[in-house]
Amino acid sequence: MNAAMSTGRIICAGLGPGDPDLISVRSDRAIRAARHIAYFRKAGRQGQARRMVDGMLAPGVIEYAMEYPVTTEIPFDSPDYNRLLSAFYDGWAARLHSLAAQGHEVVVLCEGDPFFYGSFMHLHARLHGVVPVEVIPGIPGMVGCWTATGQPMTWGDDVLTVLMGTLPEADLVRHMQVADALAIMKTGRNLPKVRRALLAAGRLADAWLVERGTMPGQRVARLAEVEAEECPYFAIVLVHGHGRRPVAGGEE
Amino acid sequence: MNAAMSTGRIICAGLGPGDPDLISVRSDRAIRAARHIAYFRKAGRQGQARRMVDGMLAPGVIEYAMEYPVTTEIPFDSPDYNRLLSAFYDGWAARLHSLAAQGHEVVVLCEGDPFFYGSFMHLHARLHGVVPVEVIPGIPGMVGCWTATGQPMTWGDDVLTVLMGTLPEADLVRHMQVADALAIMKTGRNLPKVRRALLAAGRLADAWLVERGTMPGQRVARLAEVEAEECPYFAIVLVHGHGRRPVAGGEE
Repeated sequence: MNAAMSTGRIICAGLGPGDPDLISVRSDRAIRAARHIAYFRKAGRQGQARRMVDGMLAPGVIEYAMEYPVTTEIPFDSPDYNRLLSAFYDGWAARLHSLAAQGHEVVVLCEGDPFFYGSFMHLHARLHGVVPVEVIPGIPGMVGCWTATGQPMTWGDDVLTVLMGTLPEADLVRHMQVADALAIMKTGRNLPKVRRALLAAGRLADAWLVERGTMPGQRVARLAEVEAEECPYFAIVLVHGHGRRPVAGGEE
Repeated sequence: MNAAMSTGRIICAGLGPGDPDLISVRSDRAIRAARHIAYFRKAGRQGQARRMVDGMLAPGVIEYAMEYPVTTEIPFDSPDYNRLLSAFYDGWAARLHSLAAQGHEVVVLCEGDPFFYGSFMHLHARLHGVVPVEVIPGIPGMVGCWTATGQPMTWGDDVLTVLMGTLPEADLVRHMQVADALAIMKTGRNLPKVRRALLAAGRLADAWLVERGTMPGQRVARLAEVEAEECPYFAIVLVHGHGRRPVAGGEE
C-alpha cells in the first residue's frame, strides 16, 4: 500500500440546532462510528457540541477538545486576538492533518451547519486540498429557532436577511428596513443594540427572541416583552415574513 | 375514551435538500413508522418528496398524493389561480383534519425545511389550532447547495440575503448590492433576469449555479460560464460571503 492509499480523512459532521434527534442520518452514523472525535469548546467547559453527542460515542473513542485560547479577555478586533486565534487554528489543522496522514478518520463536530458561520471553516481553509475533507450539512440553528416559534418564517416572495448582532447599529437598521423576514444571530451583549435597531426600523413589535431553540430550557418570547439587557450568545432574534405574494404550487 | 383522547395528529416531516441520508433522525423515524403519508406533487409525476422516501415506507402504508390543480397554465397572479389553489388547500386540510379526528397520525412530507418557503405552510395555516400539528425541521435546500460548492457560505459578520428569482429585477439588484452573501431560489425561467441583476450589482463573477444539490446528477458551475437560458426550478444561485471581519472563537 502506498502513502496515498493509507491517507485518512476529516469529516465535519454538522450537528443541527441542538436536539440530537435533529442530527442528519449521515452525521449520526459518522458520529457513532467515529474512533477519533474533535470539537471546539471554551476552556473548562464541556462545550455544546460535545454535550449534544453524549451517549452516542463508541467505547474507546479518542477525544480532542480544541479549546479556544481566548474568549473575552482580549478585544475581538485587536491584533493579539487574531494572532492567538490563527496560531490556535494552525496548530489544530496540523494535528488533524497528521492524524489523517497516519490513516485515521477524524470526525469534527460542528453545531448547526458547518459552512454557515461555523468555526470549522477556519480549519477547512487550512486543510482543504491538503487532506480529504468531507462536510456533512446540518440544520442551521436559526431553522430550529423558527420552528420553535410555531410560525412559518418565509412565504411567497419574502426576502430573508440574516444579520449578526455584532454589526454597527446603522447597518442593522438599514438591512432591517428592506428585508421582509429577519434572523439576527450573535445577540448576547448586543441585545440592547439589536432592540434599538429593530425599533428604528419599525420591526420591534414583530420580533421574537428564541433562547436554546430545540434544547431543554427552550424559551420563545416577544422581544418587546423581554426586559433583560443580555441573552445567551446563541439566542436568535426572528421577524417572520408575511408573504409578499402568497404564491404556491406547481413549482416542481 | 373521549373524543379528545382519540384525536390523532399531523406531523410535517422536513426532508432536507434531496439526499435521503440528510434527513434528520426524527423525520427518518416518523417516515418509517408512518401508516398514513401525504405529499404534494404535480399531476402525473411521482414528485420529488415521494421519490426521496422510496424504500423507506412501511408495507401497507396509505398514501395521499396531493396533486396541484394547476401548474403553469394559469398566470400566478390571476384571481383564478389563487381561487383554485385556495380550494385545493381547503380540501386537503379538511381531509387531513378528518383523518386526525378519526385518531390517525398522518405524516406530510416536505422538501427542505417546512417553514422556509414550503407548501406545507398553506395547510399549516388551516390546521394550526384545529388539530395537533408537529413540524420537524429539515436542512434547507440552499444549505445542501452551498455544501455542494465545497466553500464556506458565510464568515464573521457577513450579511446573507435570500431572494426569490420571481422578484422584479430592480428589487433583485438593490438587495444584491447591499448583502455580502446571496442565495437566489426559484430560478428556472427567471435565470436570465437573475443573471442580469447579478451583473448590474457587480456580483456575477462570484456567482455559482447549483442544480440538483446533494442529489444524483448534481451540477455545480460558475453562473457566468453557464449558457442556458433556463434551469430547473429548484436550482439555486449562490454568492459566497468573504468574512467582513474574520472573528471566531470564544463564542459559546
